[in-house]
Amino acid sequence: MTLIAHPQAMQFDAPLPLQSGAQIRGYSLAYETYGTLNADRSNAVLICHALNASHHVAGVYPGQERSEGWWDTMIGPGKPVDTDRFFVIGVNNLGSCFGSTGPMHVNPDTGRVYGADFPVVTVEDWVNAQARLLDGLGIEQLAAVMGGSLGGMQALSWTLQYPQRLRHAVVVASAPNLTAENIAFNEVARRAIVTDPDFHGGNFYEHGVVPKRGLRIARMVGHITYLSDDVMNEKFGRQLRNGLLAYTTQDIEFQIESYLRYQGDKFSDYFDANTYLLITRALDYFDPAIRTEGNLTKALAAARAKFLLVSFTTDWRFSPGRSREMVKALLDNHRDVSYAEIDAPHGHDAFLLEDPQYLAVVRAYFERIASEPAMTDAPVVRDLPAGAVL
Amino acid sequence: MTLIAHPQAMQFDAPLPLQSGAQIRGYSLAYETYGTLNADRSNAVLICHALNASHHVAGVYPGQERSEGWWDTMIGPGKPVDTDRFFVIGVNNLGSCFGSTGPMHVNPDTGRVYGADFPVVTVEDWVNAQARLLDGLGIEQLAAVMGGSLGGMQALSWTLQYPQRLRHAVVVASAPNLTAENIAFNEVARRAIVTDPDFHGGNFYEHGVVPKRGLRIARMVGHITYLSDDVMNEKFGRQLRNGLLAYTTQDIEFQIESYLRYQGDKFSDYFDANTYLLITRALDYFDPAIRTEGNLTKALAAARAKFLLVSFTTDWRFSPGRSREMVKALLDNHRDVSYAEIDAPHGHDAFLLEDPQYLAVVRAYFERIASEPAMTDAPVVRDLPAGAVL
Repeated sequence: MTLIAHPQAMQFDAPLPLQSGAQIRGYSLAYETYGTLNADRSNAVLICHALNASHHVAGVYPGQERSEGWWDTMIGPGKPVDTDRFFVIGVNNLGSCFGSTGPMHVNPDTGRVYGADFPVVTVEDWVNAQARLLDGLGIEQLAAVMGGSLGGMQALSWTLQYPQRLRHAVVVASAPNLTAENIAFNEVARRAIVTDPDFHGGNFYEHGVVPKRGLRIARMVGHITYLSDDVMNEKFGRQLRNGLLAYTTQDIEFQIESYLRYQGDKFSDYFDANTYLLITRALDYFDPAIRTEGNLTKALAAARAKFLLVSFTTDWRFSPGRSREMVKALLDNHRDVSYAEIDAPHGHDAFLLEDPQYLAVVRAYFERIASEPAMTDAPVVRDLPAGAVL
Repeated sequence: MTLIAHPQAMQFDAPLPLQSGAQIRGYSLAYETYGTLNADRSNAVLICHALNASHHVAGVYPGQERSEGWWDTMIGPGKPVDTDRFFVIGVNNLGSCFGSTGPMHVNPDTGRVYGADFPVVTVEDWVNAQARLLDGLGIEQLAAVMGGSLGGMQALSWTLQYPQRLRHAVVVASAPNLTAENIAFNEVARRAIVTDPDFHGGNFYEHGVVPKRGLRIARMVGHITYLSDDVMNEKFGRQLRNGLLAYTTQDIEFQIESYLRYQGDKFSDYFDANTYLLITRALDYFDPAIRTEGNLTKALAAARAKFLLVSFTTDWRFSPGRSREMVKALLDNHRDVSYAEIDAPHGHDAFLLEDPQYLAVVRAYFERIASEPAMTDAPVVRDLPAGAVL
């Protein structure tokens, strides 16, 4: 059965206090839901997205032939996260360029497009905004929060910010914070964007231009880090585009160059430069252990959820070692943790791909969730002040 | 005793045929020599440089206090490559911006600055040019050719292009070709430079500008790949520059950002953009096995030299596995090969650093070279037509 998706939006007038000390008001969040919320409202699953994704997680829009949902392999009728059993919510984060309020929208306080003035948002801010969305949907407790990469950071942060509002966290290809190398790659991408003359300090909208050069470079760098060395060698190796060397420094010689340029071009056509800065910064900042002098065990002590963590052997951006750090910290806290390290050649990208072992692990975990009684009697803490546990 | 360096230059009027089919004439090569050529001219060691280096390998210029030689830890009186025993030659490659003829010089055929018209040069071309320099110096056979990274590729290529003209090849932190990932990083750097509006298609000299934005990005990307994840975490980790988060996407938050920006700025002040394109392309192109359908054993069959190969455990740019490929191919050919895999935390950069184990390995190898009789009776092939073995 084809899953039909309907984009929706929820408007929030009350100001949302942000971790930076700023606040944002009059914003809206784009979201989609799949499946049916059950009578006791206990089967909701929130999906958090990573850098280049949105609320459109799965399914097709009316009239579309093929799904463009970014996790369509994972979510839908009969799929590992089965929308015949679960009420799945995809939400687009604040600052994105895919529907929720972002830098290209008008700041109600000034009447002008935010541009570079869009407030810096963090994983914690996103989670607070998501919690308000759930309030609006009348969902007190989630069966699970799930995400990969930056989405996994949100799932982890949910367990710390709203420990009573979720029963399970599914954290895929993620990390408890970025390494220096991760930050370094983000910084290269940001500098490429910010130093593009078409960036105009972030206010390029009013100049009618887009810093495409910078966005292309940012995407090319990112793309390299999403793939493994092995899969790049297997897919492209040293293949020449035209069979013979042309001896040129500016034109394409190798297939890998062609591929990267294509990815960069495509990305620069649709992604917002300010959003890229905001999202990479949210990645940089995330670090629950900053409040416990780097002690991750202490940092995760507040978590009450049960956990599934998944990592991929060739992911060098968020390596299995980073997932094991989280597993160890959770076990130190006597949490219920399942962990799968998937032998996959595709690097970080693997979390978005159709790997049978990976999908089977998630399927089994969600079958377990479906078979558990909902803890409807558990004390539910609502309307925690935003940032209360920070 | 302080080693005093004197930069010299040799002018070549005869055209040098290049691998691309083009040729270059009226060029000069900058070089330096250290130590004394012995009576039978058998103690010469040629040092080949990598991306960001020159003929100034060691020693101080008259009046200088400290050496800025890029391999001063390795070369000098009493050092592993002992200039009291060996006559060491540092040479700057064609296309460089440090003294030899490059894109910023005048093309004698047009009377205009080369700019983007400087011919594409390869490792093989450099080796041919170096061989002519040796002709000019009256050196028929080298005791050794030595280089790290791209310099190691030149040392390897020497053994194939002029097998009779060297007794030893010392190939450090190198590879028999670049992987797709290596090429990808080079391509990001090149695109950053080429798409900088100040690049002007490579003819920025006549516009009085320098594509500094692109050069900065190129250097930042490069720098990340020279370091290991571990050493970056140890050196910078998640340290904040100002102790507290400022919540900014454009200003510096983390020390690693500050470090990378500094490296990028410094580099953009002195490095030529066209040179960067040429040198990264020479890296991309190098692949002796392209002539043997990818069979490295067959590709290295022409080598007659004895080999020392060195790699570093945390070098992910030119990983130990790549050195082992070369070791295997040489052993398949029954060559005399020594191989050391140095346990060093510093990534690719390790080949330039003062690691006692590494320096001891090289020292021991050069003591062996010094104790061997020079094969002065070996048939010496001179004036091989350039590219003859290609």
